[in-house]
Amino acid sequence: MLDVCLLGTGGMMPLLYRYLTSLMLRCDGSSLLIDCGEATQLAIKKAELPTKPIDYILFTHFHADHISGLPGLLLEMKNSDRVEPITIAGPKGIEHVVNSLRIIANELPFDIEFVELDDNDGFFDLKPYRIQYFKLKHKLTCIGYNVFNDRLPEFKVDKAKVNNVPLKYWNKLQHGITCTDKETGIVYEPSMVMGESRKGIKLTYLTDTRPCDNIYKFANDSDLFICEGMYGEDDKEQNAKKYLHMTMREACEIAVKTNPKEMWLTHYSPSVVKPKVYENDLKKIFKNVKICKDGEKKELNFED
Amino acid sequence: MLDVCLLGTGGMMPLLYRYLTSLMLRCDGSSLLIDCGEATQLAIKKAELPTKPIDYILFTHFHADHISGLPGLLLEMKNSDRVEPITIAGPKGIEHVVNSLRIIANELPFDIEFVELDDNDGFFDLKPYRIQYFKLKHKLTCIGYNVFNDRLPEFKVDKAKVNNVPLKYWNKLQHGITCTDKETGIVYEPSMVMGESRKGIKLTYLTDTRPCDNIYKFANDSDLFICEGMYGEDDKEQNAKKYLHMTMREACEIAVKTNPKEMWLTHYSPSVVKPKVYENDLKKIFKNVKICKDGEKKELNFED
Repeated sequence: MLDVCLLGTGGMMPLLYRYLTSLMLRCDGSSLLIDCGEATQLAIKKAELPTKPIDYILFTHFHADHISGLPGLLLEMKNSDRVEPITIAGPKGIEHVVNSLRIIANELPFDIEFVELDDNDGFFDLKPYRIQYFKLKHKLTCIGYNVFNDRLPEFKVDKAKVNNVPLKYWNKLQHGITCTDKETGIVYEPSMVMGESRKGIKLTYLTDTRPCDNIYKFANDSDLFICEGMYGEDDKEQNAKKYLHMTMREACEIAVKTNPKEMWLTHYSPSVVKPKVYENDLKKIFKNVKICKDGEKKELNFED
Repeated sequence: MLDVCLLGTGGMMPLLYRYLTSLMLRCDGSSLLIDCGEATQLAIKKAELPTKPIDYILFTHFHADHISGLPGLLLEMKNSDRVEPITIAGPKGIEHVVNSLRIIANELPFDIEFVELDDNDGFFDLKPYRIQYFKLKHKLTCIGYNVFNDRLPEFKVDKAKVNNVPLKYWNKLQHGITCTDKETGIVYEPSMVMGESRKGIKLTYLTDTRPCDNIYKFANDSDLFICEGMYGEDDKEQNAKKYLHMTMREACEIAVKTNPKEMWLTHYSPSVVKPKVYENDLKKIFKNVKICKDGEKKELNFED
């Protein structure tokens, strides 16, 4: 299960009626935040979510509208009496950038561990999340993320019995741990008690990019594809190309090819006052697109 | 004339209903901002004030709730097409701190000039404002400011005529410039056309401090004394002492001794949900105290 809250939907600068784009995911009591522009701590308050359980913060890139709220958020977490370490991941230079910003937030009661991502693509674990990262196409290095919440295969009691697996090993085997019986020397593998692999949850988060090959390579078949749609009017495509962003139409055309269950648009230009007006036309391109407002929530569940 | 807007009235962290304490002054088309915590650009939008004319930013100290909004504000000013240089003043280290924060706002179309203030007290000019600074008593170096809008003495036509001052020098003399006639060699002094000196406007801004000698030395007889009142309940005086802040009562007791025309309280702790409830009791200590809300405005004019 993945609890999703799109805290804000703005790009460039916070507005009185639209906070900057950032995403809060929650699973098993551990929260993961992607991006943290100025006033994200207000967006979190507005969504009535706690900051204390934020164990992980991922940054897509170092433009201010995606990171300037970090010092304030860290201090807010300090005021929430957090003492457990947090992990911050982002492009090359993440540790330097965060420490530079922390000149005004240097006394924290918790440690920060950094994950510096290279220019290629890959996976890393932030349990209970599994993260895939890949490079996008923006003015400076910008990273797209897939967040997976993997699902264990089903436990098969019949299979365990047929394979004569002692009851005392069932739990460990269910969680992927191979067991060896000290007395008999018999090795018990997880495959001896588990059924077929099962589809987990995949969420894709892309912002500040032109359409590019890596999107088609990595963003396929998501349960929820959250994508920038900086401009609503088609005649703004030149602006999108100039500033290395996307129009809402371009985002929907990507969805047609990558086949998500649902696409949420976000990161609207301040010039787009009422993004919702474009929704009907966009649905003709990709039916399951939603022009999100701040605080859009959804619970992603495993398939039955 | 000094146009005053107290943009926010919160301390520590922005709240959904209370932005962080910062002050916007306007005079002769030039704006001066004191402090700029996270979301100050939203407070400015809410007060319907423009950012482009901000020529000067003064910082009291480097706690995040007073400076974390700077990168976002600078980028907002960039988006407003500002190209004229701005001046930023603050305690020792101001240039280093600002440049450290600017790791996420490094490409600006205007220059930043710095005024680094020493640990003593003194004056500097930011025309049309004259600034006096003095050290306060906080966990780290914190500065109090007096902002003066000086008033020229009245121009006396009779005096100019009696002193045989040629008409062509009247304007320069009125603006304090001594003139020498090239043909006759006669020197004309401003005193030959001007009346008695006249009282200008004095505004005092103090935040994040315990009561201390410098306040009594420098904050006297202000037209408007804006002062922190972190805690409302008298039993929070221990907290005020511990964290080097003031209770609202302590601020009012300072007003009794420093005699401002009016005192505005601000910088309330997030724990103070309804600061206004303390106002009636505080008025018994100092009659002209106001528990301000975000966006409190006033026009300070020269006396007739």
